[in-house]
Amino acid sequence: MHPRLRATYYIRSDARSIERRAQALAVEQSVEMPLAAVDDPFVRTEIVGQVETIAPMENGQFEVRIALASETVGSDPGQLLNMLFGNSSLQEDVLLHDVELPSGLAHCFGGPRHGLHGLRRRVGAGARALTCSPLKPQGLSPQRLADLAQRYALGGIDFIKDDHGLADQFYAPFEARVATIAKALGKIDRRSGPARYVPSLSGDLDTMRRQIATAIAVGLDTVLVAPMIAGLSNFHRLVREHPQIAFVAHPAMAGAARIAPALLLGKLFRVLGADAVVFPNYGGRFGYSPETCRALAREALGSRDHLAPCVPVPAGGMDTGRVAEMLDFYGAGVMLLIGGALLEAGAQLIEATASFVEQVHRYPYVADAG
Amino acid sequence: MHPRLRATYYIRSDARSIERRAQALAVEQSVEMPLAAVDDPFVRTEIVGQVETIAPMENGQFEVRIALASETVGSDPGQLLNMLFGNSSLQEDVLLHDVELPSGLAHCFGGPRHGLHGLRRRVGAGARALTCSPLKPQGLSPQRLADLAQRYALGGIDFIKDDHGLADQFYAPFEARVATIAKALGKIDRRSGPARYVPSLSGDLDTMRRQIATAIAVGLDTVLVAPMIAGLSNFHRLVREHPQIAFVAHPAMAGAARIAPALLLGKLFRVLGADAVVFPNYGGRFGYSPETCRALAREALGSRDHLAPCVPVPAGGMDTGRVAEMLDFYGAGVMLLIGGALLEAGAQLIEATASFVEQVHRYPYVADAG
Repeated sequence: MHPRLRATYYIRSDARSIERRAQALAVEQSVEMPLAAVDDPFVRTEIVGQVETIAPMENGQFEVRIALASETVGSDPGQLLNMLFGNSSLQEDVLLHDVELPSGLAHCFGGPRHGLHGLRRRVGAGARALTCSPLKPQGLSPQRLADLAQRYALGGIDFIKDDHGLADQFYAPFEARVATIAKALGKIDRRSGPARYVPSLSGDLDTMRRQIATAIAVGLDTVLVAPMIAGLSNFHRLVREHPQIAFVAHPAMAGAARIAPALLLGKLFRVLGADAVVFPNYGGRFGYSPETCRALAREALGSRDHLAPCVPVPAGGMDTGRVAEMLDFYGAGVMLLIGGALLEAGAQLIEATASFVEQVHRYPYVADAG
Repeated sequence: MHPRLRATYYIRSDARSIERRAQALAVEQSVEMPLAAVDDPFVRTEIVGQVETIAPMENGQFEVRIALASETVGSDPGQLLNMLFGNSSLQEDVLLHDVELPSGLAHCFGGPRHGLHGLRRRVGAGARALTCSPLKPQGLSPQRLADLAQRYALGGIDFIKDDHGLADQFYAPFEARVATIAKALGKIDRRSGPARYVPSLSGDLDTMRRQIATAIAVGLDTVLVAPMIAGLSNFHRLVREHPQIAFVAHPAMAGAARIAPALLLGKLFRVLGADAVVFPNYGGRFGYSPETCRALAREALGSRDHLAPCVPVPAGGMDTGRVAEMLDFYGAGVMLLIGGALLEAGAQLIEATASFVEQVHRYPYVADAG
């Protein structure tokens, strides 16, 4: 039979109940019915989830490893999530910590089409870290956003992304926005070519396809998408259909899941094709710890199943005072995203941006983490 | 300008910090940048989220109401979720409790196309509660699942749904499964017509469209879908494109969100077109309280914006011993879903099913909750 997926859950339980609780979880995520009523031998031996190990953790939880039949997943990303955590997401005592995907499944999904090295090549970054700034606030007109993009570009930013709240609103409709900004950036003469504009996709699969077509038509090659809002299957479909496009994944709605960020944002988004993944850095507006961020970056970048490395993009209230610290922490295989802190410079935005960029360019990188 | 969405959040905070925290949340879910750097008057007055009320709760949390610009949402369901909770889902001190949608937006989404009354008409149920049983375990062949469906139908069940784990696996591919089961049920001669088979959709939007076409081709008119896995925009697209199809929403991955179940499963799934919504009943394998279940059922069924009522489907480890209690609790506007407990009857499945059905038919309904 096919190799099994090995999923690791953290369960809050007392020692007396943990075996029964682990067994119930294995059933919930496979056949979802009383085992006594399962009479089919194939189902009993091949389909029912199997508790492999139960280990107490220091915090009073238990680490439980369950082998799930990869036949139940097939090769659909949404069904993968469904079989890993669909029903158990409704049970508050359990958290999905990690999963070992069979290499065949990882290969089938394929991972990033461009990844760290592809994104670096596109902006002529050599072996340094990448820079990114967001277009915000929403509510501005395409022309105002284009003016902002030009100033970021004059400051030397590599990637200029839409705020993830930008969709297809009347004040900046997708098509007009993308055309206006792409044209404005094309006018900025830089040795490395124009800064990469990364428009944010939204809506159903067909709408996102039309948005990508619009982006391609004006010469863009990178987009932003929130896989947990789009649906993992639709995100992956877009990746498959557009091998020339680089995908930056946004974590919107990914934090509500009781799924370890390193697994969901680092491993799964990468396996499904994210070339870069935005996540909330420690010490900003969000509560991720340094350990969570380090684990996430490792999952995104580390050697795995011959997948290209996905660029970690720590964000969420970063400022230029933290550039050196972040590069110390993440190394060169990172894209630094600074937004609000630059916008506060007002009329001095170009200078503030250039100072950010210069810090990243001049940092004494010791080795390429990618 | 457009009316605002009023979102209610529960925030864990001390009294000294709550004003600043509430203000930060209003910014996070709107412009996502320092207000001091927002110089555009339209953005400042119309787009920035506004804290309207802050009220202490008994459990030490605060109830915070924030008015969000409906212009930022437009009419896309995924963007609605994004603007309500996209980034804040990454912050563990906050829970999305409720949202007042402008009636124009609810009207635009349109709600259930069939709802309680439509589903009752389809199975000739009059004013009584509806019955449902699941096809499981996964791993069985289409023929074995069809045999099971026939026995449920002979027992008098109204709706027979796929286990939500059934997708397009090799042991029961979608097309073969749906054709085999529909044909088997068509052979059962009942006054009310064949029991309604409800196949489970999976995959990206195109795959789900093909699955609906397959279902329609064999005479089916009801499907199961997990909106949080499909993506809300894709779920709603399917509803719009198939007005003749009734949609049963499954809660897979909807429990991980720190969004009140009454809001997500009851209100939002209904507004987007769910005709019925499966959720974990209190006292089963999941941790919802009776209050949560009651609030959810009220949101699903209650009068709102001229939307049809969506049928609550309490489930998750129910058995026939609880039928009267559940009907006392929910009234007639409910679909009772019992699975594993019937399957444990083994060779007596038809009799066990008939006994369940008879309890539902004979219950002395006082008034129609729908």
